[in-house]
Amino acid sequence: MYKKVEIGKKILSANDQYALKNRQLLAEQKKLCLNMISSPGSGKTAILVKTISELADKLKIGVIEGDIQTDLDAERIRATNAPVIQIETRGSCHLSAAQVNSALENLPISKLDLIFIENVGNLVCPSAFELGENGKVVVLSVAEGDDKPAKYPAIFAKSKTLLINKIDLLEAVGQVDFDIEKVKADARKLNKDIEIFPISAKTGEGMTNWYHWLERKIKAGQ
Amino acid sequence: MYKKVEIGKKILSANDQYALKNRQLLAEQKKLCLNMISSPGSGKTAILVKTISELADKLKIGVIEGDIQTDLDAERIRATNAPVIQIETRGSCHLSAAQVNSALENLPISKLDLIFIENVGNLVCPSAFELGENGKVVVLSVAEGDDKPAKYPAIFAKSKTLLINKIDLLEAVGQVDFDIEKVKADARKLNKDIEIFPISAKTGEGMTNWYHWLERKIKAGQ
Repeated sequence: MYKKVEIGKKILSANDQYALKNRQLLAEQKKLCLNMISSPGSGKTAILVKTISELADKLKIGVIEGDIQTDLDAERIRATNAPVIQIETRGSCHLSAAQVNSALENLPISKLDLIFIENVGNLVCPSAFELGENGKVVVLSVAEGDDKPAKYPAIFAKSKTLLINKIDLLEAVGQVDFDIEKVKADARKLNKDIEIFPISAKTGEGMTNWYHWLERKIKAGQ
Repeated sequence: MYKKVEIGKKILSANDQYALKNRQLLAEQKKLCLNMISSPGSGKTAILVKTISELADKLKIGVIEGDIQTDLDAERIRATNAPVIQIETRGSCHLSAAQVNSALENLPISKLDLIFIENVGNLVCPSAFELGENGKVVVLSVAEGDDKPAKYPAIFAKSKTLLINKIDLLEAVGQVDFDIEKVKADARKLNKDIEIFPISAKTGEGMTNWYHWLERKIKAGQ
């Protein structure tokens, strides 16, 4: 007796199996889902709060909120009246596709236009775990310095979009520490198609470009 | 035949075995070794460059420099003429005690007063891996927001010292986003003995308090 072995059939990890489930669910429901990744304190939550509030008349947005501990960020999202599911990872440094799967089951997906996943604040580990999202958005604050694409290339190589946040601090940080053109060039060396939007979630500067990008992506069905 | 089993004998992980080796080596040589941990872009390298330069007449400092990719930080340290060993983790999100062990073997330890380990930029994972150091120093930039001790408690609970860096940006960031007294109170709730120094590696403000702390620790033989 011989068993037939299929050569080339990729065996999926447990995480990738759930990522595939999530991808299929999102495709069936035709929903855009974006995975926001950054260092702690780059402003992911502030960007989401601003985006949800300013697009409230146009888009229904839901959020899956990942944190190691506390629900401080989920509370900030909840204050906008957007539906939010909190995942407390209790020490784990990234969200898993299984966690996102369970959160998706608890969100009113059919009523939403757009779902954001706010990953754990970590520029390294979350980039290695597919969640089934349609795209990753990396956020970099100008206070973090302009060497980050070179030093943490994985997430810049994998993201659809780079939001350069806190440009209201640019003058105080100074061009020696943050040369915005260098960041753009270094990110594009890793990823020629990456879209880059310098923004300030605090002052609102540049946010319209980001909103238009979101609206275009939703319209294009991705 | 029965085997005698020693109850209570802790079985060390491979990492902890190397951490123990490092701790013994540092104790034999009576050297202070500090493990610097923070988010990407909080200013660990800038703090080291400033500290090495300003204490050049008093202390001989060596550095073990951890990065996921590139030797950009090691180059900045090398420019101060301090001995530096670069560890490129190639994707790994933290330094291991084995990597530090090999770096220690390549540093002229007997000629040094103080060894800094600059961990990978990551506020989460490095806190879980003992390297055999005498203490951890956590760095938080004021641009990262004042909710970090609550959201990432492990590293604040485990550190001897908290450096609140980039206080030159405090005015631009604003007290709404960074209340320095709240950070101090939250960190002390997790760790009543933590020493806290607000500093700016850029302007030099507050650095003297940090230098005096280092000198006291070296004098006390820890």
